[in-house]
Amino acid sequence: MKILLNPPKQNWLALTQRPQTRKETLTDLVIKVFNEVKIKGDSAVINYSKQFDAVELTNISVSKETIANAEKSISNELKNAIQIAKSNIQKFHIAQKEKVNKIETTLGVQCWRESRAIDSVGLYIPGGTAPLFSTVLMLGIPAMIAGCKNIVLCTPPNKNGEIDNAILYTAALIGITNVFCVGGIQAIAALTYGTETIPKVKKIFGPGNQYVTAAKQYAQNNGVAIDMPAGPSEVLVIADNTANASFIAADLLSQAEHGADSQVILLTDSFKIAEAVNTEIDFQINELPRKALAAEALKNSKTIVLQNLTECIDWSNLYAPEHLILASDTAETMVYKITNAGSVFIGHYSCEAVGDYASGTNHTLPTNGFAANYSGVSIDSFVKKITFQQLSVEGIINIGPTVEVMAEAEQLLAHKNAVTVRLRSLGG
Amino acid sequence: MKILLNPPKQNWLALTQRPQTRKETLTDLVIKVFNEVKIKGDSAVINYSKQFDAVELTNISVSKETIANAEKSISNELKNAIQIAKSNIQKFHIAQKEKVNKIETTLGVQCWRESRAIDSVGLYIPGGTAPLFSTVLMLGIPAMIAGCKNIVLCTPPNKNGEIDNAILYTAALIGITNVFCVGGIQAIAALTYGTETIPKVKKIFGPGNQYVTAAKQYAQNNGVAIDMPAGPSEVLVIADNTANASFIAADLLSQAEHGADSQVILLTDSFKIAEAVNTEIDFQINELPRKALAAEALKNSKTIVLQNLTECIDWSNLYAPEHLILASDTAETMVYKITNAGSVFIGHYSCEAVGDYASGTNHTLPTNGFAANYSGVSIDSFVKKITFQQLSVEGIINIGPTVEVMAEAEQLLAHKNAVTVRLRSLGG
Repeated sequence: MKILLNPPKQNWLALTQRPQTRKETLTDLVIKVFNEVKIKGDSAVINYSKQFDAVELTNISVSKETIANAEKSISNELKNAIQIAKSNIQKFHIAQKEKVNKIETTLGVQCWRESRAIDSVGLYIPGGTAPLFSTVLMLGIPAMIAGCKNIVLCTPPNKNGEIDNAILYTAALIGITNVFCVGGIQAIAALTYGTETIPKVKKIFGPGNQYVTAAKQYAQNNGVAIDMPAGPSEVLVIADNTANASFIAADLLSQAEHGADSQVILLTDSFKIAEAVNTEIDFQINELPRKALAAEALKNSKTIVLQNLTECIDWSNLYAPEHLILASDTAETMVYKITNAGSVFIGHYSCEAVGDYASGTNHTLPTNGFAANYSGVSIDSFVKKITFQQLSVEGIINIGPTVEVMAEAEQLLAHKNAVTVRLRSLGG
Repeated sequence: MKILLNPPKQNWLALTQRPQTRKETLTDLVIKVFNEVKIKGDSAVINYSKQFDAVELTNISVSKETIANAEKSISNELKNAIQIAKSNIQKFHIAQKEKVNKIETTLGVQCWRESRAIDSVGLYIPGGTAPLFSTVLMLGIPAMIAGCKNIVLCTPPNKNGEIDNAILYTAALIGITNVFCVGGIQAIAALTYGTETIPKVKKIFGPGNQYVTAAKQYAQNNGVAIDMPAGPSEVLVIADNTANASFIAADLLSQAEHGADSQVILLTDSFKIAEAVNTEIDFQINELPRKALAAEALKNSKTIVLQNLTECIDWSNLYAPEHLILASDTAETMVYKITNAGSVFIGHYSCEAVGDYASGTNHTLPTNGFAANYSGVSIDSFVKKITFQQLSVEGIINIGPTVEVMAEAEQLLAHKNAVTVRLRSLGG
């Protein structure tokens, strides 16, 4: 990776900019597909699957038998690993459930919040080069814990109309039975409007290519919520001279192999580490089957050598990385200074790959600088938090006059009157 | 209000539809203003304030003296009321702060979340017929509690370039010092890009007219987050024969006075109550200064008489009201059945006006059916929840092999290698 030495602070903001992703004008195409799916339902979904994905779908829905049979082709070793990951992800996400906490703000005025699941959610699992069954875990488990009644999974099939067995096995394991072999814009359109076969949902989750991203964006115009804006995946490593160059190189490459547009940044106060990591990358990259993709991603990537770890943390907060690895003996002392990041990996043995799969944290995280204003997926993403309030007679007597004064000052006399009629009925 | 008697269930969904709001094509105008503010900064803001709001701004920024002097023109009675409301809103929102809860998902694998404030937030307070200082409380207090460092308040001035003193007093009371007398599209554009005077922010909050709404929508294309999609305000009352018709009429009118596009719905199992409420409305409306607005809103509104309270709750969940009032002796028993609502008011003395101003709950809530998939504003709206994980040597030994198996099955060998290099260094 290219090494930058102590860039002046006035250049930092420019350095944090991600490369412009090509913004093709997909809107017209998205609107066309949405309109057709809205009117023609399943037949439009089938036609577009033929046109875009070169697959002749006889069934959009994956049968119970196909889902049940999937496990036969999964090794016990993989089943066991998926089950361990599931257990950890469950433990971490169950702990996010909010307990009801009633607050008596004024004597006789009780206020609280209760979570209610979003009724119907759509989980989009991308197809492509690798079967991302881990994303089924990361979206399906919190949806289940939140209590979403209708969980609909869409994923593009291969040319034979089939879905990877690891995806089906994982879906079955966590109890998802509504699986549809549809991908791309047509899948998002179907989840937005509903078709004869695919149920309409209230919120759509999951990563995807530029077509899926544009379609999710557009779905929002039709009352559907989405998990977060999307962008290429990224990792930032902060390392000092206590770091292990081999570990860091492996972490940077694990991000780089995602695709040519992946973002990989190393910040360090040690030029020696910067060089050692480059040497390790050159060595490790040769072993990788996805070497070409990783090499392409590394061209956009950079190592920045700064004066000290404080500068590294400041730069990282400005960049707001999706994944942040703190590779230092003093990693723990940096935690409270981290203000913008999706997920943080503390110390030499906390590699991103562990969080991607099995430690329990969610891997659906804000990218492209959105870690400055969005959180990753959690139980919160699958619920609404409804506020409740209950006033006793004492409560309205205590708080009523305050409301009357404020409503009058805002010239909202009917608001005032809603209190006055009650106070008057109590002899006030 | 028009009374519908037991509409058949197949018509329910159609009945829950809000009237189509006129969707004027504001996009071109929004893009024009955004581009000009981006390039010309303050001078564009000043020009558009002249063009749209007929105000000659000499200072965009409201001076410290003006803010400090505002309290002189506020009555002690109003100051006292605002301070009580502030105290209640603080109590309720402080309780929403999430405590750090470390979960050891596997021996040696610690995972947790920590909240970090969104660094810079913009609060938009609408101008218009009434000075909405209550919205300053509802947005400013959680922003302060969350710890947002830069809180920027924009609100349109009157024709003399002045801002209502109650707004300034409330801002000062909660510690907001960055106040700008700018409204409309140009305010949202300034918050999005920043100008010489107005700081750029990461998230924009607050209600507004169709121009502000369109501008907030467009701001999202520039990396800015927004609180929620907007629509006209609404209330739904569920009442049985234990309800007080006078209270309900007052509650319906308090919503109706907001504007001609307000939505007001009464659901009841008692035709007698339906009629009594209509009689009360006809009586109470004559006393209201905003009678004309309220009468207009009531034209879009309806009473629906259903078989029983269970049907009322089902219909309400389908409608997903912003405000839901449960006017029944048995209100408490309905709470767990409510799945879609912004804020719920339980029993005869819990009127919406109390929550609008002073009970402590937030009044910035999802409308237009969005209560089915969005929450109202809370502390959560002003923070990101960052996940952290820390693995000990024991942790990576315990979880590493699981990650290796999963990464290999997803054909992401560099992910696997990030674990392998660590296990190998430990003699694994």
